Amino acid sequence: MELLERTLGSIGVPDAASALACRRRLDSLTKPQGSLGMLEEIAVKFAGITGKVPPDVRDKAVLVMAGDHGVTAEGVSAFPSEVTVQMALNFLREGAAINVLARHAGARVVVTDVGMAGDLDHPGLRIDKVRNGTSNMSVGPAMTGEEAIACIEAGIRAARDEIARGTRLIGTGDMGIGNTSASTAILAAAGGMPVSSVTGRGTGLDDAGVRKKIDVIERALLVNRPDPSDPLDILAKVGGFEIGAIAGSILGAAAARVPVVVDGFISTAGALIASRLCPRVLDFMIASHLSEEPGHRAALDLMGLEPILRMKMRLGEGTGAALSFHLIDASIRILTEMATFEDAGVSGRSS
Amino acid sequence: MELLERTLGSIGVPDAASALACRRRLDSLTKPQGSLGMLEEIAVKFAGITGKVPPDVRDKAVLVMAGDHGVTAEGVSAFPSEVTVQMALNFLREGAAINVLARHAGARVVVTDVGMAGDLDHPGLRIDKVRNGTSNMSVGPAMTGEEAIACIEAGIRAARDEIARGTRLIGTGDMGIGNTSASTAILAAAGGMPVSSVTGRGTGLDDAGVRKKIDVIERALLVNRPDPSDPLDILAKVGGFEIGAIAGSILGAAAARVPVVVDGFISTAGALIASRLCPRVLDFMIASHLSEEPGHRAALDLMGLEPILRMKMRLGEGTGAALSFHLIDASIRILTEMATFEDAGVSGRSS
Repeated sequence: MELLERTLGSIGVPDAASALACRRRLDSLTKPQGSLGMLEEIAVKFAGITGKVPPDVRDKAVLVMAGDHGVTAEGVSAFPSEVTVQMALNFLREGAAINVLARHAGARVVVTDVGMAGDLDHPGLRIDKVRNGTSNMSVGPAMTGEEAIACIEAGIRAARDEIARGTRLIGTGDMGIGNTSASTAILAAAGGMPVSSVTGRGTGLDDAGVRKKIDVIERALLVNRPDPSDPLDILAKVGGFEIGAIAGSILGAAAARVPVVVDGFISTAGALIASRLCPRVLDFMIASHLSEEPGHRAALDLMGLEPILRMKMRLGEGTGAALSFHLIDASIRILTEMATFEDAGVSGRSS
Repeated sequence: MELLERTLGSIGVPDAASALACRRRLDSLTKPQGSLGMLEEIAVKFAGITGKVPPDVRDKAVLVMAGDHGVTAEGVSAFPSEVTVQMALNFLREGAAINVLARHAGARVVVTDVGMAGDLDHPGLRIDKVRNGTSNMSVGPAMTGEEAIACIEAGIRAARDEIARGTRLIGTGDMGIGNTSASTAILAAAGGMPVSSVTGRGTGLDDAGVRKKIDVIERALLVNRPDPSDPLDILAKVGGFEIGAIAGSILGAAAARVPVVVDGFISTAGALIASRLCPRVLDFMIASHLSEEPGHRAALDLMGLEPILRMKMRLGEGTGAALSFHLIDASIRILTEMATFEDAGVSGRSS
């Protein structure tokens, strides 16, 4: 609890002077003011976060948190639980989508086992394990209150370690068969939404599978009655270790004034927990993409986040975050490489 | 006319066998089928266009077409006409947003003067000029029927020349003060939409400016009565030389089986003209981003195109196209660099 309390206490506010200096620079460049839209907004936001113009976000990493879910016993996923460990190994061998997209963006992939059901022995794996998978939330709490804090703190440590290595931009990522069920339950609990309106196909359920998933999530909420105003209670009752760790990585990055790019639906559930623990953290994150999961839009709306990409993706792992790193680099290059009206001898507005 | 006819005649259909081979490869990779959404759709589409798996789109260029608009005499833009030539020079000196974003994507920027009001002498400028600016469409046709064909053919030549140099992916781009007015008029004429519902602020008009712009465009349509079923008549009556050239560059690329990434509102007006001349051309293009111009969504809907990026951009120049090149590269890298379920020893679906 001490690490969590200390982290929450050290999350500050954006530096308004740097944000303003960045906006002034952008307005002097040869384009109508504001015409590059979110490319400009990202540069301004990141200047405020880092307190630097231009913000330095060259050294990048996607922090993938891996954990398993007891609720898979109810048959809520198209893939078996063993795939979590198998995919974690695929990440470490650099064969997964997140590896390809992170490499393409010049970013590292860091995998942390915060609660996989199986144990994996690989030199590249960070191990900061709370337990071998959560309990089945449809019959009782997914984890204890202490475990909820433990997985958030594992995420804080992951961010802190990466930032100590020089990382200046963090993307969130997840691996955990069953974790759209947990994320949907978090969203329904925190946002007061009907489960049926925010439940999707996950990795590929058919209609009957989705109906069963809705039923299981509704049971989990009925059995556990998470307190909507208490993010730690929600995480403990219906969350996942990797989701708590994602929340922690966001908090840890914000405390160090490092911007965070939030991936899709699972990461957004983590961001929701983080933002309920500390609303100021919203100033330190951007949303990378809009997932095909129907609850994602609702989760982003709860936080007032607007995604950059709409590519109908629904993979997770951090793939949306990695894909948007290039757009962030573009935003910084606009700030540093474009000519001003004065330099280029271009006339200003006639009105 | 001969070049245009020949080009239209040589636009074929996608190669279904290559598209299918690409889809099969994607489905063997370690991810739920289809879970990378449009990243997968782009790879499949480009495999069909090029007839190759993986499609080769490494060598990229943004073709920026520059032209002026007589209708600026009516005060429809926040910037004076002279900015067209000034910005073209900025492009050639590599100081503009399109230069920064194209460089970031590893793409060339090729600027063609198809109808600027002023003449620019620079070794990097392609000159294929129809006339020094269109006539004022609010009092008569913007150009003659012959000029409409001439500017399309200039675009075909630009694409053909670039492809001869080895370019395998083309982005469209524009420069022309006043060209949101022309594009809006094209959209209203071709789509039968009320001018007021599709007219926007362009480079930054205030409310009174937008009202005046609507009035000017309505007058242009009333005076000229373009035939909604005749794209050449629409282009001649209310178009622009650079818009016709964009249509031509799309047709030229499609004829050579080279994929085209369509930029924002102006480029989409060009794409609309191209698709009315030859509906098959739609299979050769993708839409890069959704512009802030209110007519853009309507124009994309007319063609059934779904944009990848939603970054509230409204600059043109080809900036949205350049920004999406990275996503296209990512789509090809997914196809070529990811492990298969078999390679990685990952279990398939349990259902």
